[in-house]
Amino acid sequence: MIYYIGVVGTFAFGISGALVAMNKRLDAFGVVIVAFVTSVGGGTLRDTLIEGRDVFWIDDPTYIYFIIGGAITAMVFQERLELLRKHLMLFDTIGLGLFTIAGVQVGLNYNLSYSICIILGVITGAFGGVSRDILVNEIPYIFHKEIYATISILGSAIFLVMHYFGFGDGLYQLIPISIIILLRLLVVSREITLPSLYTDLKRKKKTE
Amino acid sequence: MIYYIGVVGTFAFGISGALVAMNKRLDAFGVVIVAFVTSVGGGTLRDTLIEGRDVFWIDDPTYIYFIIGGAITAMVFQERLELLRKHLMLFDTIGLGLFTIAGVQVGLNYNLSYSICIILGVITGAFGGVSRDILVNEIPYIFHKEIYATISILGSAIFLVMHYFGFGDGLYQLIPISIIILLRLLVVSREITLPSLYTDLKRKKKTE
Amino acid sequence: MIYYIGVVGTFAFGISGALVAMNKRLDAFGVVIVAFVTSVGGGTLRDTLIEGRDVFWIDDPTYIYFIIGGAITAMVFQERLELLRKHLMLFDTIGLGLFTIAGVQVGLNYNLSYSICIILGVITGAFGGVSRDILVNEIPYIFHKEIYATISILGSAIFLVMHYFGFGDGLYQLIPISIIILLRLLVVSREITLPSLYTDLKRKKKTE
Repeated sequence: MIYYIGVVGTFAFGISGALVAMNKRLDAFGVVIVAFVTSVGGGTLRDTLIEGRDVFWIDDPTYIYFIIGGAITAMVFQERLELLRKHLMLFDTIGLGLFTIAGVQVGLNYNLSYSICIILGVITGAFGGVSRDILVNEIPYIFHKEIYATISILGSAIFLVMHYFGFGDGLYQLIPISIIILLRLLVVSREITLPSLYTDLKRKKKTE
Repeated sequence: MIYYIGVVGTFAFGISGALVAMNKRLDAFGVVIVAFVTSVGGGTLRDTLIEGRDVFWIDDPTYIYFIIGGAITAMVFQERLELLRKHLMLFDTIGLGLFTIAGVQVGLNYNLSYSICIILGVITGAFGGVSRDILVNEIPYIFHKEIYATISILGSAIFLVMHYFGFGDGLYQLIPISIIILLRLLVVSREITLPSLYTDLKRKKKTE
Repeated sequence: MIYYIGVVGTFAFGISGALVAMNKRLDAFGVVIVAFVTSVGGGTLRDTLIEGRDVFWIDDPTYIYFIIGGAITAMVFQERLELLRKHLMLFDTIGLGLFTIAGVQVGLNYNLSYSICIILGVITGAFGGVSRDILVNEIPYIFHKEIYATISILGSAIFLVMHYFGFGDGLYQLIPISIIILLRLLVVSREITLPSLYTDLKRKKKTE
């Protein structure tokens, strides 16, 4: 199950990375490289953090073909760009759901504590998008646009509760994945954001 | 000793990262994530560079609680933001002193050469702040504002000399830590900077 | 052979990183740090991706002396800055050629598949420059300026074909290295770029 999650997530993030790169007017190889980094960035960081674990795509080049497939898919459908701009969010969300749960599962396989499993879930789900945004020179989207990390943490926690009660294997994993995807789609469509913590002191003083 | 250094440094850098994130108007989870990256960024890079060494916070989740504590502390005191703006520099400096020496000590534990120990000290002390600045899309502060890396290198060298003469354990480590902290506070208060190496050729030609 | 390739590449990328840092008006230590990251960034990422492989410069501090040498060379000749601006491209190109082939060779030493070897070649050759550009807060050059990655992939592929037919050792490696360097110099001098994949839909609609 975790293998198929990884492959589908790789493909979805490959499309998402390629769309961002095309919006930034990168050339074809730039598009493939940004798609690659978006796809494998999170899982690669997770695997280098866990001592003794091989980086997933180095042992199995299948992932690379799916990323290139995702990038080509995005390029072929570039004519429908405005349509795809909405799809960017969709593919990014599918990748987030799949990779978050894959990351938590890896942590469980190594018997790491629950708090570390949640962090590995967030890293696997979100770091690819963070790398993509750093590469195209923007403040990562995750930090200011939406309750992105919050949803990833919530999905990880639900999965860990399910795992604790023995419902963490196979198709059961589709439950937290679906919750993450649906919650993010809901949040984006309602334009819900967490409040910024910055208090504009100068304005406050003036009004006093 | 190195353990307490790590915990206090984690807390100090957590506050520093959270303050920067709040200035950038990130939401609560953005603040926690930037605090986390600022805190563990340097030590994580150090630990992935050393083959066979576990990443420090994966084995011991205590660090994570201290980071969240630092972020919450920063959030609670946000009303005193202008005061905290000065504290940002203070907490960043405390983190730099503690983490530089922790990084050198790790290099010594692995019997690495002195030049590598200094590099590990600088990476551990400074890379968290570099990651923080990259995440919020600014040229890392360390590269253009102050003699930040210079002080870290100097403190590492002093610690290595002390270690060579048998004064590198336990409370003796407070000496290079204090030197780093005091030197940076002195440099910032006097606004000392190293000269830029750029010669403005065009202006030069005009005046000739 | 691979050792000498690494040392010369380190020196060339050290000069390239220092030149970019001086253009950005960083202080002397900022210049050395950017030179260091540019030089070892690609090989370090490669070595952390391969489980069980030591990071190359941690075992052998010789590299560090060559990087500092490269940075000092760049600083000493700063008066000829406009001349050096062209040299930046030259040193960056020499580093790309040398490090691409060094990266592919490491992949072959670990019996990795050909597609992974090509990716390791591109990472080793290009990631140092990408890190340099991220540090000075620009969209990496590789993504929008030239057919940089394309040439690295092509050189890796030529080297793998040569290796397959038994011509991959020792001085034979100078052939793909030279092809990469000459191709990039040709491309830059002719100002060839790959087309951007972005179609300006709004303009298209207006003309329809």
